[in-house]
Amino acid sequence: MQTALELRRQLLAREVSAREVLDAHLAVIERRNPELNAIVTFTPELARAQADAADRAAAKGEFLGLLHGLPVAHKDLQETLGIRTTFGSPLFAAYVPDFDTGIIGRMKTAGVVCVGKTNTPEFGAGSQTFNPVFGKTRNPFDTSKTCGGSSGGAAVALATGMIALADGSDTGGSLRNPASFCGVTGLRPTPGLVPILPDRCPDSPLTVNGPMARNAADAGLLLAVLAGLSAPPGMNRDFKQTRVAWMSDVSEIPFEPVVRHTVNQARRHFETLGCVIEEAAPDFTDADAAFRVLRAHEFYTLHHDKPLSRVKETVRQEIERGSRLTSGELAAAHAKRRALKERTARFQEVYEFFVLPTVQVAPFDVEQPYVTAINGQPMKTYIDWMRSCYYVSILGVPALSVPCGFTPEGLPIGLQIVGREGADWSVLQLGHAFEQCQLYG
Amino acid sequence: MQTALELRRQLLAREVSAREVLDAHLAVIERRNPELNAIVTFTPELARAQADAADRAAAKGEFLGLLHGLPVAHKDLQETLGIRTTFGSPLFAAYVPDFDTGIIGRMKTAGVVCVGKTNTPEFGAGSQTFNPVFGKTRNPFDTSKTCGGSSGGAAVALATGMIALADGSDTGGSLRNPASFCGVTGLRPTPGLVPILPDRCPDSPLTVNGPMARNAADAGLLLAVLAGLSAPPGMNRDFKQTRVAWMSDVSEIPFEPVVRHTVNQARRHFETLGCVIEEAAPDFTDADAAFRVLRAHEFYTLHHDKPLSRVKETVRQEIERGSRLTSGELAAAHAKRRALKERTARFQEVYEFFVLPTVQVAPFDVEQPYVTAINGQPMKTYIDWMRSCYYVSILGVPALSVPCGFTPEGLPIGLQIVGREGADWSVLQLGHAFEQCQLYG
Repeated sequence: MQTALELRRQLLAREVSAREVLDAHLAVIERRNPELNAIVTFTPELARAQADAADRAAAKGEFLGLLHGLPVAHKDLQETLGIRTTFGSPLFAAYVPDFDTGIIGRMKTAGVVCVGKTNTPEFGAGSQTFNPVFGKTRNPFDTSKTCGGSSGGAAVALATGMIALADGSDTGGSLRNPASFCGVTGLRPTPGLVPILPDRCPDSPLTVNGPMARNAADAGLLLAVLAGLSAPPGMNRDFKQTRVAWMSDVSEIPFEPVVRHTVNQARRHFETLGCVIEEAAPDFTDADAAFRVLRAHEFYTLHHDKPLSRVKETVRQEIERGSRLTSGELAAAHAKRRALKERTARFQEVYEFFVLPTVQVAPFDVEQPYVTAINGQPMKTYIDWMRSCYYVSILGVPALSVPCGFTPEGLPIGLQIVGREGADWSVLQLGHAFEQCQLYG
Repeated sequence: MQTALELRRQLLAREVSAREVLDAHLAVIERRNPELNAIVTFTPELARAQADAADRAAAKGEFLGLLHGLPVAHKDLQETLGIRTTFGSPLFAAYVPDFDTGIIGRMKTAGVVCVGKTNTPEFGAGSQTFNPVFGKTRNPFDTSKTCGGSSGGAAVALATGMIALADGSDTGGSLRNPASFCGVTGLRPTPGLVPILPDRCPDSPLTVNGPMARNAADAGLLLAVLAGLSAPPGMNRDFKQTRVAWMSDVSEIPFEPVVRHTVNQARRHFETLGCVIEEAAPDFTDADAAFRVLRAHEFYTLHHDKPLSRVKETVRQEIERGSRLTSGELAAAHAKRRALKERTARFQEVYEFFVLPTVQVAPFDVEQPYVTAINGQPMKTYIDWMRSCYYVSILGVPALSVPCGFTPEGLPIGLQIVGREGADWSVLQLGHAFEQCQLYG
């Protein structure tokens, strides 16, 4: 498998045609997708038409944009003009939108070749990927395991080479968790950097759209498009003397020993880069309280118009919880988030980055809807095991999940690099430096 | 006057010391500030200590950061540790904060030399710069005229060479309006790109912090620091075939003829760059209604704890208006903003940028608090004349004000380049290309 940037180079040099690139990816989809179920709506004819248009342009010496001829698939939570969009819900099993969301429009304008839609849990709720419309998506490293979610189909399609780049979205970890479980990369950007259009819950600071790829530099290529830039900034930066807080032991966030061990093994690469690393963590007081209120408000705002009897139990619970919230409770949650953001900013004046495992556990059984205990410690709610991601979401800072190793069984483990608010490119640069160090020592 | 980037080059090459740079700027302050009143709290001793620290570091071959040794002053709406911060209000005339706001911390860490605080109207309200604590700031091109505002002190200090870079903030035009009136540059960034810490109205999408400078590339240098990047992306981009909408005639936004004429004269530079320009404008329906509700809510949230009898009339009106808003009215304003953003995004799929005059009028009498009529058309409220700025604020997209010419009397006129949400660097790149074209044809 090549990187998206290398494919782009070959396409612009006309060493390969977009049609040849597409055919190679379609062959992977045909071979692997029946078992894995990553791409749930398949659009090979649209893809061929787009690839041929790219090749016709290239023949005239014109290139469509930053993503000229690159095969992608879109998350099934993004409305796509003329392509079925189900949100993983039977209510929308036959919905064919008459518009593209903002990021789909930007990717199209940049010249992508769209092979279809990637699977997601119902309305994106939960860090796994199964729904009553399309069933479950499986982890390509062990098909008895979950691929994580909610951008699970995207992660699997990337990991197996069905596509070169993918859009994901993230409320409490939805693009970081599957990136970690499938050995790929996902950036949760600073809210505001990538548009949400239409934005059906404009007062929520939680949900963001972001890039997924097989490495940080490829994620940067897609981020440039999603953020409307004409080109990504350079990926090289010197990290000597950069202070990094290492978060491998936080009492409210229990990690499985194999996760902590694998992530700690990667610490030496940051040391090789010259980073100054200390065990430290921001103060996450009230992260839980603030996240849960704002998340329930978002679910209520987005989905209170749906018939409650026809949405899954966990979504129904959130809608009901959101319907009971008072404006005072909402204001208190915003105030808690504000205090958290201020404390984190002070912390990040000292430590430009902090690093922690992306997910608290290794990929688990695909039949299990969520994690109920970690290290024998029972999880009180269905999202407790997602804290390593959603504690970061509530801070409004950029976070990159990047692969850092494998369990003894060969399942991928990822770590999160968390940067300062607005410093998304710095996070990608550190991720890139870390990857280079893993590859070349 | 040199650019901040050229000063930086000389400092890093040790062709000049930070102390020499500072002394040159202090001399300008001593000569021009008594008449102009741009810097209202003056901190030469702090500045000398910071400059000397920069020089000691440089002597060891170390440089403090991206803004090593560059003289700046901070807007008096930003709390500064140990430096008086008045917000232009008698209530805070003696307030000395024990902390720096987020952006002040970032600028300090980047190595700035702080010469003091820049003047602003009371609580930043209004596009002029006078207050009962420090009096009025005057336009350096004609001291009988206003410098605009609310970042008026910053614009004047930049225009006269008292400082090299300045932070500004913008709710309805507060860094674009004074940039236009004083012949300097100001970027209103996409909300979220530059942190607001502490954020006392976290549910408001209106107020942002941003860079002010004497040109777009310098503004990019400061934006990199404000947004936590390790370096700014390159400024060069080819704008051939870039579609630009030209907005010189919009019925709800009357422009003085001299403003329209001067901005239209600049159109040829965009043509020289190869842009494809058409007369077009986004549909601003409901921009007024949404902006006014969200602005009143923000004033109420920020200032309802102040004694109403001791704040100025226009601020009191906004607080009272905010206090009467129902949550239904707030939700309706958010919904209107969402619809506006969606329409604008569709528009910007076609036209990557739109251009319009920054301010509807040329700089006016310094004794006049606001504009009451344009071309004989009376303004119904004290902010009607600020529509060319606040109609853009409500869209949540980046907007750069860049000088484009002068009135026959020699007063500066600026134009706004408005880009896609999140594409702040693209806006700076087009501003830079436009400046180069103005300079070198």
